Amino acid sequence: MTTTATTLKGQPLDKAAVDSLLRRRLFYTPSFEIYGGVSGLYDYGPPGCALQANIIDLWRKHFILEEDMLEVDCTVLTPHEVLKTSGHVDKFADWMCKDPKNGEILRADHFVEDILESRLRGDKEARGQKVEEKEEDPKKKKKKSKGHEAIKLDDAVAKEYEEVLARIDNYNGEQLGELIKKYDLRNPATGEQPTPPVAFNLMFQTSIGPSSNTPGYLRPETAQGQFLNFAKLLEFNTGQMPFASASIGKSYRNEISPRAGLLRVREFLMAEIEHFVDPEGHKKHHRFHEVEDMELVLLDRDTQLSGKTTTQTISIGQAVKDGLVDNETLGYFLARIHLFLKKIGIDQSKVRFRQHMANEMAHYATDCWDAELLTSGGWVECVGCADRSAFDLSVHAKKTGAPLIVRQRLDEPKVIEEWEVEIEKKKFGPFYKKDGKTIEAAILATTQEERGKLGKELEENGKVFINVPGVGDGKVEVSKDLLAVKWQKRVENIREYTPNVIEPSFGIGRILYSLMEHNFWTRASDGGDEARGVLSFPPAVAPTKVLIVPLSSHKDFAPAVRKLSQKLRSAGLSSRVDDSSASIGKRYSRNDELGTPFGVTVDFQTVKDATITLRERDSTRQVRAEEDKIIEAIRALVEGTKTWQDIESELPLFEGQQEAEVTVR
Amino acid sequence: MTTTATTLKGQPLDKAAVDSLLRRRLFYTPSFEIYGGVSGLYDYGPPGCALQANIIDLWRKHFILEEDMLEVDCTVLTPHEVLKTSGHVDKFADWMCKDPKNGEILRADHFVEDILESRLRGDKEARGQKVEEKEEDPKKKKKKSKGHEAIKLDDAVAKEYEEVLARIDNYNGEQLGELIKKYDLRNPATGEQPTPPVAFNLMFQTSIGPSSNTPGYLRPETAQGQFLNFAKLLEFNTGQMPFASASIGKSYRNEISPRAGLLRVREFLMAEIEHFVDPEGHKKHHRFHEVEDMELVLLDRDTQLSGKTTTQTISIGQAVKDGLVDNETLGYFLARIHLFLKKIGIDQSKVRFRQHMANEMAHYATDCWDAELLTSGGWVECVGCADRSAFDLSVHAKKTGAPLIVRQRLDEPKVIEEWEVEIEKKKFGPFYKKDGKTIEAAILATTQEERGKLGKELEENGKVFINVPGVGDGKVEVSKDLLAVKWQKRVENIREYTPNVIEPSFGIGRILYSLMEHNFWTRASDGGDEARGVLSFPPAVAPTKVLIVPLSSHKDFAPAVRKLSQKLRSAGLSSRVDDSSASIGKRYSRNDELGTPFGVTVDFQTVKDATITLRERDSTRQVRAEEDKIIEAIRALVEGTKTWQDIESELPLFEGQQEAEVTVR
Repeated sequence: MTTTATTLKGQPLDKAAVDSLLRRRLFYTPSFEIYGGVSGLYDYGPPGCALQANIIDLWRKHFILEEDMLEVDCTVLTPHEVLKTSGHVDKFADWMCKDPKNGEILRADHFVEDILESRLRGDKEARGQKVEEKEEDPKKKKKKSKGHEAIKLDDAVAKEYEEVLARIDNYNGEQLGELIKKYDLRNPATGEQPTPPVAFNLMFQTSIGPSSNTPGYLRPETAQGQFLNFAKLLEFNTGQMPFASASIGKSYRNEISPRAGLLRVREFLMAEIEHFVDPEGHKKHHRFHEVEDMELVLLDRDTQLSGKTTTQTISIGQAVKDGLVDNETLGYFLARIHLFLKKIGIDQSKVRFRQHMANEMAHYATDCWDAELLTSGGWVECVGCADRSAFDLSVHAKKTGAPLIVRQRLDEPKVIEEWEVEIEKKKFGPFYKKDGKTIEAAILATTQEERGKLGKELEENGKVFINVPGVGDGKVEVSKDLLAVKWQKRVENIREYTPNVIEPSFGIGRILYSLMEHNFWTRASDGGDEARGVLSFPPAVAPTKVLIVPLSSHKDFAPAVRKLSQKLRSAGLSSRVDDSSASIGKRYSRNDELGTPFGVTVDFQTVKDATITLRERDSTRQVRAEEDKIIEAIRALVEGTKTWQDIESELPLFEGQQEAEVTVR
Repeated sequence: MTTTATTLKGQPLDKAAVDSLLRRRLFYTPSFEIYGGVSGLYDYGPPGCALQANIIDLWRKHFILEEDMLEVDCTVLTPHEVLKTSGHVDKFADWMCKDPKNGEILRADHFVEDILESRLRGDKEARGQKVEEKEEDPKKKKKKSKGHEAIKLDDAVAKEYEEVLARIDNYNGEQLGELIKKYDLRNPATGEQPTPPVAFNLMFQTSIGPSSNTPGYLRPETAQGQFLNFAKLLEFNTGQMPFASASIGKSYRNEISPRAGLLRVREFLMAEIEHFVDPEGHKKHHRFHEVEDMELVLLDRDTQLSGKTTTQTISIGQAVKDGLVDNETLGYFLARIHLFLKKIGIDQSKVRFRQHMANEMAHYATDCWDAELLTSGGWVECVGCADRSAFDLSVHAKKTGAPLIVRQRLDEPKVIEEWEVEIEKKKFGPFYKKDGKTIEAAILATTQEERGKLGKELEENGKVFINVPGVGDGKVEVSKDLLAVKWQKRVENIREYTPNVIEPSFGIGRILYSLMEHNFWTRASDGGDEARGVLSFPPAVAPTKVLIVPLSSHKDFAPAVRKLSQKLRSAGLSSRVDDSSASIGKRYSRNDELGTPFGVTVDFQTVKDATITLRERDSTRQVRAEEDKIIEAIRALVEGTKTWQDIESELPLFEGQQEAEVTVR
C-alpha cells in the first residue's frame, strides 16, 4: 500500500509540476480569473471537459445501463420546506471560527488539523527526520512558509497529536473548541487563538419568484429529488422491488474557506445512485456472488477510534460475513465502485475504503464507507457509500402525507396478533377538549410492551395514566369508558413497508483530479526530459483519442488529413489536427501532456500509398500500415479488445525520422 | 406552412391528451409535487432524461465534433461584478405589474397579450366564426373559463389589436403601461387595472462564502464563462482564428409568473456556441457554400413592424445576398440549426426563423434571429442566433484590463498615417494636479477628425480648449507646451482586433417539449383507438431503442431474455425488458407511448431455434429472423443506414398471434 503521493512510475509527485501542466493545457482554470477569481470555483477547458464527459459516459454504462437503473434529472433549486424536512437546514453545517484580530474566517477542523500537523513536522525536523511537506495550494505555501518551527515535542504529546489527527473527523464544535484551548492553537497569521466554533450552514440560499415569498436553496445533493419522486418511479418500474434510481448533476456547498484546488469546490458535479431495498431479509443482493471474492482495502471505524489508520485487505464476501460491512447490498456497491475506479484508470494501490465514525456521519446515515484516493492532498474521499436506512422516505412521507411506501402482495396471508388500542372517539374529544389530539397521539405512539401493561392496568383499575408531556403535569388519567386495549387477531394480504436506501454517491470532480495525478509522470523516468510530462489516461477516458500530425503545413497534405479526420469521426473516434509549425516531436510532446494516447503522422509516403504511422503515447513506439488498418487498430485499442503489444505483433514496426525526433528531441 | 398545432398525422392536437401521456409515462413531472410544487420547476423522469441525453449527444456530434469547437464547462455561480459589466444587472429584466386588489403579480407583456387575444376571440365568437382556444395550462383554463365574452369589436379596433399583438415584443415598460390605460385592460380575476409596469431583474441572487461579502447570481446564460476564458481558448487553439467555443449546462431565469409547462421554466438546460470571427471581411464563412442553397422560412423585422406575420421561403444564399440576413456566418448557423432540428425529428412544416425587432433585442445584440417552433402554445422561440458584435469582449476587457483581443501578424507591414497626440507628461501632471488623469483621458479619447482640428488650432493659437465634463466649467485650456498634435507615419507588423461573436443558443427543454408534441399521434389516425397514443421519435433520439417482451414470465424464457439483453448492450443499443403480466398488446402499447421504436418478442419458438420477431412501432408490422440478424437490422435502423422498408425486403414478414393481438387489441 502506497502512503504518499507518487507519479504513475513511482517517483515522488511534484504537485506544482502537475498543476502547472493542468493549467497550461487548460484542463481547468480558476473561474473569473480576469476578475481576480472566486475561491472554490473552477472552469474546465476542452481537455478537462472531454475527460469529464468520458468519465460520465463510462459511469452511465457501468452503473445505469448495466443494472437498468432509472435515471432522473431534477432541479437544483429546492424550496426551503423540503430541505427543512430532510434535516439539511438544521444540520448541514461545518464548524467555523474567527480570528479576533484580522477577522479571518477559519474552518475549525481544518484549522486544528493544520496546526497539529505543522507541530508534528516541526518535531520531526527537530529530531532530524525527513519531513514531507503536505501542501495543497501554492498560495497557502507562501503564507505558511514559516508555519512550522523545528521544536521537539514530548513523545507523549506527539503521540496524542497523532491520535487526535486520526480521529479528527469525529469531533463536534464544542470538542474542537476544547482542543483549540487545550493545545493553545493560534492562527499563524496573527498569533491569536480563534473564537469558539459556531455552526455555519453550507447551503447557498436564494429566493424563488418575484415576491420573495418562496425561500429556497441550491441543492447540496441530488438525492432529495430522487426521494420525492419515489412513488412515481416505483410505478414506472411496474411496482417491482428492488430498484435503483440515479442522477448526474451539479450540487453546491458554500465551503467556509476552500483552498485545495479541485479537491474542495463550491460547485461540483455529482453522480448519485439511490438503491431502494426491502429492509427485511438482511438486504441481500442477487448479484453479490459475482463480486464476493474481490479483495478490498478497508479501514474500519474501530481502528480509527483507537487512534490508528492501519488498513486490512479482505475479500468483500468475508467482510460481510464478519459483519465488518453491514450487508450484501452495501458490499456489492463497494465492489462495483472499486471496479469502476479501476476501469477509468485510478491507481489500484491508491484506493482504500474508510468507514465513517459516529460523529462524522451525515445526519441521515446509519453506516457509511468512503472510497478514498491518495493524492498530494492526502487521502481524499471521492465516493461515499451510505446506508440511509428509511430516513428520508419516512420524514418526507410524514411531512406531506404522501405514501412513500411499497405495497407487497403476500403469497400467504399473514395472521397478526397484537395489542390494539380503541379510542371512544365520541366521548374522548369532548372530554379532553383542546388537549384531545395530543393525548390521542401519545396513546397511539405507545409500544406493544407498554400497551400490554396498559391493558392489564385498565382491567385491574378501570383507568390508566398516560405520559403526555406538555399537558397538565405530564400525566393524564384515562378511564376505561374512553379507552380499550385488547389482544387482537387480524389477517393481512398486503404488506406495507418503507424501503431502505443504499446510496453510492460520486464526486466526479475529485475523481477527475485524482485520476490526473495518478496518471501523471515525466519522461525522466525513462531517462528522458524531466520537463516533458505525460498523462497516461486509459484510451477509453482520454480526452482526445488521436492526434493527426501532418509533416508540415504543406497544402499537399490537406486532402489526406481531411479524409483521415472524416474516417476517424465516422468510426466514433475523436481526433484533433495539429498543423502548427512546431516540430513533430514538439507537437507529440504537447499531446503527451494532453493525454492523447495515439498519434498518426501524414507524410510524403502517405500521399503516395495511403499508409500512415501510428504512435503509442507511453512507449513512443510506432507502427506503419495502410490507413484503414491503422483506424481499425485504434478502434480496438480504444474499445480495449486489443493491447499495444497485440498491435506491434500484427503491424510492422516503424523507426523513421520522426520517431527519432520524438525520442531524442 | 402549418399555422396551428397538429399531431404528426395532421389531426388537431389535443394538448391535454399529450400532457397526460407525458406525465403518465414520466417524461416529466412537476418538481416537489408532494410538497405542492413550485411553478416553473420540472423534473425529467427516465424517458425524458434519456431523450434529453440523446438530443445532447446528437448536438455534440452535429456542432462540436463536426467543427472542432472547444467545449468548456464553467460555473453557474457568477459574482456580481461580472454580470454588472455584462449589463445583466441593469438590463436583464421583464416588466412586471401588480393587481392593486389581490396583489397578484403579472408579467406586463403577457398580460396585455392575454387580454387582447381574449377580446379578439370574443369578437370572432360574436361574428359567428370558429374560435380556437389557445390554452397553455389546465389551471389557467379553469381560471379564465369566463375569460372571453362574445362581444363584437369595431373592425378598426380589431385590426389595431392584431397589429399590437404582432409587435408585442417591441414595447418597453412605459409603452405597455400606455396600452393598459388606452385599452382599459383589467385583470379578469378582480376587474382591476394593474399598476404601471416596473422592471424586475430575472436573475436569482445568492451570496458566496461565509461572510456574505461576495454577492453573486445564478448565470442567466452560459456565454459569460466562455467570454471570460477567451484569451486562454485562443491560446489553446494555437492562436488560430476563427474558432468557436461551446458549452452545455444549466442556466436560470427567475420568471415572474411561469404558467406554460416546460415552455417557460426557471431552471433550464442550454447549449450555446460562441463563434469568434474577425469583423473585417464581412464575416465570411468558409463552409457557407455547403448550405447556401438550403431554403429557410423567414419572418423579418420590417414585416413585423408593419403589423404582419407573413413569412417568406428563401434560400439562405439569397437571403444573405439581399442583406435580409446580415452576413455569411450568421446565415451558415441558421442553416446548421435548421439541419439539426430536422435530424432530431422536428416537423419541418413547423419551423420558422423570426428576426428580433429593435426594442426586443437583448442589450448586447446587433442582430438576432430566433428559430421558432409551432406548438400548442403558439410559435415558441427555441433557438436564438444572435450577432453580439464585440460587445462582451470589449466591456470585460475595459473593466479588467485583460487583453481580450487577437494579435494577427500582418503578411505585409501596414503603413499608417494619422494624427497622434503627444502629452508632455512631466509638465502636464503637475500643472493640472488632481484633474490631470481625467483631462488626459479626454484628450486620448478624441477622434481623428477632432485631432485634425486640435492640431490646426494649436498651430494657430498656441492653445486649445478640450471638452472635459466634470472639470471646471467643462472646457479646459491646454497650451502647446503641454500638448502636441502631429500628422505621423508609422509601420505596423501586428494588427490587433477584438473579434465579433455569432452566438447560436439552444433552449434544450423547449426543443424537447416541441419534439414530443411534433411526434405525437394516436392510432385513431390509422382507424385504431383514440386512446392509444404514439410518440414517433426517430430511432436515434428515442429514449430506449428496443423493448424485449417475453411471451410470459415463464422461467424458460429467462436465459434467452438475458442473452439478448446482453447482446444488445454490447451493440450499444439501449433496451428494456417488460416481463409484467400484461398482454403483449398492452405491453407494446405502453412502449408506443414511450416512443420505443422497436420491439422483440421472445416466445417458444425462440427457445427452440433462437429466432425472434422484430416489431416496428409506427406500422406495427413485424419480421422474424435469427437473433443476430435482427440485432444487426436494429443497429442499421438506429444508425439510419437502413429504413424499415429495407428490412421488410430483406427479412421474412411475420404475422403471428401476437401481431393480431397488437393491431386488433
